[in-house]
Amino acid sequence: MTKVAVILSGCGHMDGAEIREAVVSLLALSREGAEVQCFAPDIAQHHVVNHLTGKEMPESRNVLVEAARIARGKVKPLSEAKAKDFDALVIPGGFGVAKNLSNLAFKGPEAQVLPDFARVVSEFLAQHKPIGAICIAPAVLVAAIGRDYAPTVTIGEDKGTAEAIAKMGGTHVNRPSDDIAVDEKNNIVSCSAYMRNDELAPIADGIEKLVSKVIALAQSSKARKIA
Amino acid sequence: MTKVAVILSGCGHMDGAEIREAVVSLLALSREGAEVQCFAPDIAQHHVVNHLTGKEMPESRNVLVEAARIARGKVKPLSEAKAKDFDALVIPGGFGVAKNLSNLAFKGPEAQVLPDFARVVSEFLAQHKPIGAICIAPAVLVAAIGRDYAPTVTIGEDKGTAEAIAKMGGTHVNRPSDDIAVDEKNNIVSCSAYMRNDELAPIADGIEKLVSKVIALAQSSKARKIA
Repeated sequence: MTKVAVILSGCGHMDGAEIREAVVSLLALSREGAEVQCFAPDIAQHHVVNHLTGKEMPESRNVLVEAARIARGKVKPLSEAKAKDFDALVIPGGFGVAKNLSNLAFKGPEAQVLPDFARVVSEFLAQHKPIGAICIAPAVLVAAIGRDYAPTVTIGEDKGTAEAIAKMGGTHVNRPSDDIAVDEKNNIVSCSAYMRNDELAPIADGIEKLVSKVIALAQSSKARKIA
Repeated sequence: MTKVAVILSGCGHMDGAEIREAVVSLLALSREGAEVQCFAPDIAQHHVVNHLTGKEMPESRNVLVEAARIARGKVKPLSEAKAKDFDALVIPGGFGVAKNLSNLAFKGPEAQVLPDFARVVSEFLAQHKPIGAICIAPAVLVAAIGRDYAPTVTIGEDKGTAEAIAKMGGTHVNRPSDDIAVDEKNNIVSCSAYMRNDELAPIADGIEKLVSKVIALAQSSKARKIA
């Protein structure tokens, strides 16, 4: 059985994890027979956004507690995530990745990432275990490890973010919603998802392809280790 | 194109809509090529539950505003939902259905339902348009219209809820997670989803079957109208 860690950044695309991307990832992983453990940082959200109006709300929510809504309670603090316990990592998108796991939404190519997020992705890369990054997550992945690994990723066709990826040491390639970019050197798979304002069906097609490729890479990596 | 109304009861299975059931429903509807409009009541949630600990939180959230997290902002007040504008209705589950759309969670077979919810489901039934009810939603549907329509539904194998359904005028049938109950007389399709603590894959199979049947019933109902 393939063990997969999933990092959630809250619950709601404007201030947390993109809910649909997270659920479609979890469903695809369930259908692949993977054993999943969700993680989220035990920190306050950058802010809380009213998803009906788009306006900030005068309250505070915790990323781990809100992520538990998607994870149905089965989520652990990101500080407890260790690559050695898993075969692969999947990171759904949403502004939470760019606001809670990093400050990419505000700093662009000068973004800093949460130390635990940088540690976890660095561990997976060092251990040659695949990472699937969805929507805006590929850009934050590049912010974390771009200088060391020069990854190739897609975030769709958003020019500003594509330029930021280049400045942070990555290479951006354009892919449609239902397709993925595969960086064979680094075992990084990415898809654009809701970086494009597309229908859910093609977005889910892209995420399903991503999960399928991540599982295949994890299994071939495990097979190589055994051989 | 089949027009489908989806009623959400918040965002999170302990105090709102079950997120995974809602997303899998929306994905299946998108893949069927349906045109979807989400609705939720513009009322305060019964309460807010910390989904990590299961404990109540000392704060207040609005059902419509939280449902917008799942709907990506595209959700209207339930008061604006009219059956005449749609071909079918889908109601995902979660405790929000039993706490916000009704008080079934507290009153059992003596449950009262939100007047707008009762009005909407009554309209769909009177117009012979199909309703898909997921998880605990079939029981609240029976609370709303059991005496008038004596529907047959499934909520899995939860004995207490099955007994409540019988007391409220419905008939309960047991179905596994990946299957549906079809009440041909009333055009009501139901599946148990997270009423069973099952894996996401079979639960999604059941919801996909439900959506597929609801769309088929809506199309044959439209065809009969034209003929």
